[in-house]
This record gives sequence, C-alpha cells and structure tokens, in this order.
Amino acid sequence: MLVVKLGGSAGIDPAFTLDDLAELSQEEKIVFVHGANAVLDEWTRRLGREPRLVESSTGQVSRFTDRETMDLMLAVYAGLVNKRLVEGLQARGVNAVGLAALDGRIARGPRKDTLRAIENGKPKVLRGDYAGSIEEVDPSLLLLLLDHGYLPVLTPPALSYGGEAINVDGDKLSLQLALALQADALVILSNTPGLLRDLSDPASLIREIDVADEMSIQAAMAAARGRMKKKVEAGCRAVRAGIGQVVFADARVPQPIRRALAGEGTVLLARSPIGVRS
Amino acid sequence: MLVVKLGGSAGIDPAFTLDDLAELSQEEKIVFVHGANAVLDEWTRRLGREPRLVESSTGQVSRFTDRETMDLMLAVYAGLVNKRLVEGLQARGVNAVGLAALDGRIARGPRKDTLRAIENGKPKVLRGDYAGSIEEVDPSLLLLLLDHGYLPVLTPPALSYGGEAINVDGDKLSLQLALALQADALVILSNTPGLLRDLSDPASLIREIDVADEMSIQAAMAAARGRMKKKVEAGCRAVRAGIGQVVFADARVPQPIRRALAGEGTVLLARSPIGVRS
Repeated sequence: MLVVKLGGSAGIDPAFTLDDLAELSQEEKIVFVHGANAVLDEWTRRLGREPRLVESSTGQVSRFTDRETMDLMLAVYAGLVNKRLVEGLQARGVNAVGLAALDGRIARGPRKDTLRAIENGKPKVLRGDYAGSIEEVDPSLLLLLLDHGYLPVLTPPALSYGGEAINVDGDKLSLQLALALQADALVILSNTPGLLRDLSDPASLIREIDVADEMSIQAAMAAARGRMKKKVEAGCRAVRAGIGQVVFADARVPQPIRRALAGEGTVLLARSPIGVRS
Repeated sequence: MLVVKLGGSAGIDPAFTLDDLAELSQEEKIVFVHGANAVLDEWTRRLGREPRLVESSTGQVSRFTDRETMDLMLAVYAGLVNKRLVEGLQARGVNAVGLAALDGRIARGPRKDTLRAIENGKPKVLRGDYAGSIEEVDPSLLLLLLDHGYLPVLTPPALSYGGEAINVDGDKLSLQLALALQADALVILSNTPGLLRDLSDPASLIREIDVADEMSIQAAMAAARGRMKKKVEAGCRAVRAGIGQVVFADARVPQPIRRALAGEGTVLLARSPIGVRS
C-alpha cells in the first residue's frame, strides 16, 4: 500500500504523476491525495478577492477560511482540481474515484472557528474560520474502494464533529491516511527536489533523515524553513509510528513516484529500531 | 430502492429535501442526484463571462460547454454544490459520499464536440463542446456504497469513452440510474409543483399520466413546454422500462419526497400492463 500526495503549488503539471500512477497502480494499491493551493489563489483573485493569509502568534501562516473561502475551496479542491485529476486517470485507463476527506467521514476533527493572528503587525481575533485539525481517520471507505479495484483520489476539506466542512492541511491529511492505512510508504511530491540546505541550490539536497538518529533530525530541522519544518516533523512522527519510509520529492520530473521510491529526494526512515513515540 | 433528483434551478432551498432524505434513508436505499444550474450561471457571471445558451436546429436549448465552462461545471456541480449537500447530510447524521458521474465510470457515452446551433437567428457550427449523451450506466460503485451504508450524492458531468468529462442532462442521468438500479420509484424535485397546464396557475396541475393510455400521454405532451416535454418523454420511457412510478414534484415544501411518493405532484405510472417498449 502506497500513499502519494501531489502538492498544489504553482509550476506543477500533474501529467508525470498521473502517468506514473497509471503504471504503479497495476502492481500496488495506491491512495492519491492532492492539494490545489495555487488554483485556489487564482480563482480567489478572479472573483475579485485577495487570498487572506494570516500569521498565528507562533509564526505559522495559514489561510483564513471564512464561509465564502470555503465555498471556493470546495469548488477548486473537491471540484475542479479533483475531477480533472480523476479525468486524467480515467483517460489513462485507471478507474479513479474522486473524494473530499469529508465524504464518508474519512477525516474528522474539531473545528476551530476563532483564529488569533497577527495582521499588519497587530494582534487580531478573527471569528468565523472554517478550519480545524484531523483527530480521526476512518479508512474503511478507502479500503472498500481499493478492494474493488478503484483508485481513490482524495483532497481536503475534512469534516468537523458538528458536520461542517473544515480546512485541514493536505500534508497532514496524507500522513494520517498513511498511518491509518498502514502504508508501506508515503511519497510527498511538490515543486522542490526535497529538503534543501540552500533553497537556491538543488545540490544542497539532504538525501536522508535517519529518524532513529537525533543528530540527523536536528540537522534537517536546522535546514528546514517555514512550512517545511512542519513537514519534516510530521514525516518523522510518521516513520516513528510505523510507515517504512516517507519521501519528499520533485513532482516536475518524469516518473516522480518511481524516482522517489528509488531514493531520489529526501528520504525519512529509521536506520535502527526505534520505540514508538508520538 | 429510490432515486431522488433535486433540480438546480433558482429558488430551491435544499434543507427540506435533506431533512426528508435523512429520515427516509433509514428505511430505504436512496441514490440522490442533483443539478446546480442557477449557481453555475451565477459563478459564470461573477467570473466575468455570460452563460452561453444556444438553440439547436430542433429548438432544444443547451449550454455550450467549452473547456472553461467545463472547469466551472466541475467546480460548481461536483465541488461547491455537491459537497455542500454532502455536508448538509453529514450534519444530519447521514454518511453521504459525493461523486460526479465520471467517478468510477458511473455514466459514460460519446462526446459530441460539435454543436449545430442557431445563435442570434443565424445557423452556426460551434466546435470544442464538451457535451455528450449517456449510453452506459454502471451501477456497481453505487451499489457497493449502498450495501455498506453510504448514501451516494451524484451529479453531472459524466465520462466520454475517450476519458473526458462531458456535460450531460441531470434528469436523464437520474432516469438512467433509476433504470440501471431497478429503482421502485424516481422522484424529480424542482421549483414547480409538477406538470402544469397553465404555468401561472398551480391549480392546473396534471395529477397523473397513465403511461398505458395513449390519450393520457398526448394530453400531458400538449401541456408540457420546453424542457418539460423532454422530462415527460423520458419519464414515460422509464415507466415503460419498469420503474414503478416517476413523480415530478415541488422541492420548495416540507417533506418533498414523502409528499411526492404519496402522490403530490405529477405521477407517471402504468394503470394497466404495458409491453416493454423503448
């Protein structure tokens, strides 16, 4: 079992990933997760709004998701981008089924409707946020589809305990799915070759993070910037919890999944046995 | 087994239908189909375009679906409207799963990329249309979901044989699904009380069309205007092919599905045995 996440940043043509999925899904069960960040920004601007990114007091940048932004997120993530990927897989002969994580209660958690943020240097309390975190993943719908030959294509938003659509992080969704499905590997594809020491230098790629080695983790965390810090932390947790390997790799090359599984990118694994920590 | 279609015209609040679905789905397997026409028009205009409705040489009005219109259709039908309905059902305790008819190859047919139309009184040949008709319905994904306690929520577009998203008529989709699922009844809810002799007078409702009685059909066809003609024809075909009853009913009243099944609306049925004709 393999979980593949394709990031939604600008500059990624999904064709390489879809080609690879079409071949690999003949050999192995795969759940395909995707984002749609760049298209969401584009559509937000086309509708005359500006994407509202706010910084939390801990320095984390997130999208303030009021009701209209959630409308757009449903349209772009679960509609446009999800179904174009399903169409691309169907055209390649793969019987794909597109879902949002709220369908069939795949991923649920609490909604946090208030966001404490810093905007233009000032602390603010923003209410009406449709965002939350994933606490429960129920893989039964995905397993049902996989057992019957379908390839699930999955995207945020998830479902709150109150039954509302909530914005959740796509990387975290794919990690939690990989854990719930006891996947052998999780491949996270984006518009970088992996974790770079120097963002402007692809040769500065960190090839491996040994999650059993505290020094290796510290070196990786020192190199990671912004959102990448969260990705590395979450990836380490996933390896500790039993995923054989987590790979951050480049979506912009042919056969991106095969390359990632062959070690091209940043591979997170445990070189010696480690106790299960969370 | 019941198939319920909720139209996408303006002036329909889905809450009544969702309340009814939440109760009825405890007793019976239901497939829920929906449109999103009014929201699609609204979003098309918000993005600075005008919906392009064209008249065919036979007088049928349809939406010219170029690639950008299909993007919008995927966003609005399969994303925004589909997932808001799923969310509404989840909030009512129903484990809904939203799908487009292209997912899992539920509905397939040929793409017709050229549209011969009359625009501003002149005949035109419009190319690049992503539209088509449904020739094959595969109900296995829907049956799989129903057998495991999920309520499928389904919407156009369907899939072409070449693997492209194609615009198909939502009423026809629901009729063909009802046939493939051997449903006991099909309820088509919209913003009218049913088939009216006089559109401005709800009291002119035609309460029954006896599909075994040619006179009854002729009277109904004489009363039907525009798109309603197609609905009546398709409904008659469905009853002839074995659906116990087809009901055109009002979505704007409490318990719209229960009312329709109790005979409120225009009921199409066969009062005497009829041979299977197509």
